[in-house]
Amino acid sequence: MQPGNLDVVGIGNAIVDVLTHAEDAFLEQQSLDKGGMTLIDTARAEALYAAMGPAVESSGGSAANTMAGLASLGASGGFIGKVRDDQLGGIFRHDITSGGTVYRNDPATEGEPTARCLIFVTPDAQRTMATYLGTSITFGPEDLDLELVRAGKILYLEGYLWDAPPAKEAFLKAAEAAREAGAKIALSLSDAFCVERHRDSFRELVDGHVDILFANETEILSLYEAKSFESAVDAVRGHCEVAALTRSEKGSLVLSGDEAFKVEAMKLGELVDTTGAGDAYAAGFLYGYSKGFDLAACGRYGSLAAGEVITHMGPRPERSLAELAKEKLA
Amino acid sequence: MQPGNLDVVGIGNAIVDVLTHAEDAFLEQQSLDKGGMTLIDTARAEALYAAMGPAVESSGGSAANTMAGLASLGASGGFIGKVRDDQLGGIFRHDITSGGTVYRNDPATEGEPTARCLIFVTPDAQRTMATYLGTSITFGPEDLDLELVRAGKILYLEGYLWDAPPAKEAFLKAAEAAREAGAKIALSLSDAFCVERHRDSFRELVDGHVDILFANETEILSLYEAKSFESAVDAVRGHCEVAALTRSEKGSLVLSGDEAFKVEAMKLGELVDTTGAGDAYAAGFLYGYSKGFDLAACGRYGSLAAGEVITHMGPRPERSLAELAKEKLA
Repeated sequence: MQPGNLDVVGIGNAIVDVLTHAEDAFLEQQSLDKGGMTLIDTARAEALYAAMGPAVESSGGSAANTMAGLASLGASGGFIGKVRDDQLGGIFRHDITSGGTVYRNDPATEGEPTARCLIFVTPDAQRTMATYLGTSITFGPEDLDLELVRAGKILYLEGYLWDAPPAKEAFLKAAEAAREAGAKIALSLSDAFCVERHRDSFRELVDGHVDILFANETEILSLYEAKSFESAVDAVRGHCEVAALTRSEKGSLVLSGDEAFKVEAMKLGELVDTTGAGDAYAAGFLYGYSKGFDLAACGRYGSLAAGEVITHMGPRPERSLAELAKEKLA
Repeated sequence: MQPGNLDVVGIGNAIVDVLTHAEDAFLEQQSLDKGGMTLIDTARAEALYAAMGPAVESSGGSAANTMAGLASLGASGGFIGKVRDDQLGGIFRHDITSGGTVYRNDPATEGEPTARCLIFVTPDAQRTMATYLGTSITFGPEDLDLELVRAGKILYLEGYLWDAPPAKEAFLKAAEAAREAGAKIALSLSDAFCVERHRDSFRELVDGHVDILFANETEILSLYEAKSFESAVDAVRGHCEVAALTRSEKGSLVLSGDEAFKVEAMKLGELVDTTGAGDAYAAGFLYGYSKGFDLAACGRYGSLAAGEVITHMGPRPERSLAELAKEKLA
């Protein structure tokens, strides 16, 4: 595989999502931060699963969801992440590769099972996540397929990797390899609590190492400890080539140099579950970017992809985003 | 557990569904009967899974879906069926028990894995199924929890059990035990191809052994080798206490003695996937029946439950059917 052969290569936790509807009171009982992501260990995962209602499963993982969205739009891509040789690992592998994404990591043959994310969708369609990283917590530099990293015109990294030291190391090694191969580096801040845990190093990263930054409103406020969206916008300007800031139903704001493009959200059905909305937005945006579209158009593709995944349970598109784009953006 | 303690006890294959969208051409390429259920072996299951697109998972199985629907409506129930001690088996167990259904079968500790049903949803929202029975093919009389069978006021059986000789034996043994305990026997014909394979014994069963029969239009036509729905209706009359015949968007017809009640379908959203519509209808109907509602009301509960599951991918309700009933049927 030659450098630049693929539109985007993503690195992230390889997770299967387990999604259920829940009331706000359940989140309080279980001490889960509404709208956030809490890391949980084996015992907590078992107790929480036992307490949760009937669920449905979908492959997940932030960067992996973005790669699935890119594949659905027709972009070429690769994914790097770690599963075990169990049934959930097989499901994850099937879903990412059958969409057309290159995924070559061998599954771990021992240790913890494939990562699971227990997701609670409240009546307001907000999602609250509890992630059991399982084998994914051992993901490190030795799991990097550097040939695949270099094959991407864009390397896409999820902020969640920062939570585990070996993954963080892999993140930095991959970014360096991609940079040397002439690729752009894109980062999603992932989660406001994650930003809070790693604010200084994320700021350092954004400042000079990241070309394209994805963040939602709470994440960018947390990154710059800003009081308002406007002051967060002022703070991020100039720190990276492009910043795409998502604001749920208010759409997104795309910043580049002195320019700012306001992009509308796209309503494609009833709001059911916001899981994966940010990941899908990044997929649409990066699709447009990789095709050389202007930044406002990139944002519209982001709105389209996010608009689709929030109309059903689960973080990955159920309809062909390429066909949806033909219908809605032609 | 005392006889008559539970509203309904169901027996069926314990299956996890793997659902994807597919074009009609794919079904032809794979020689799958559109709208039907094809039994597949391990090799075929692997090849078909490799050929299918990205999917989502949900616990399934015809009778198990009906029990999940009953639980969502607030009825008490039990389920009997067989999984293995693998991750998919754990998912099946979680989903059925967390809804409130009693499920006490120990998982098999050796042999084939938990059953999977690969489901292809075509653009017309019709579903076509390929079932790998896995460990479920060994389900037999020795797996019957007779105390649980006797606990049901109604025993609900899926026709699919007829495809495997030990399951058929269990079916008959359970029916006898339930009858002795004073329970009603309900049967779903499951699938027109299944009816074709076992027409004579299904007719014998319906004629005197079944109190409540569920069938869709193609199934009842197949059972009586009828040329029109009207002649199938004439043929089934008098063979069982109640026959509930479903007709997709045309609603259902409930027959009892000389009476016939025409029930409208209920539209609760965009039609996405018809998987589980018949199972959900049976859930709603049996809920009403167990509560002593009149037959037309039973049919309306059936329409409500079916109306919900066809608005999303997967065979089990995503919303509380009890709340939906309060809203729509109060």
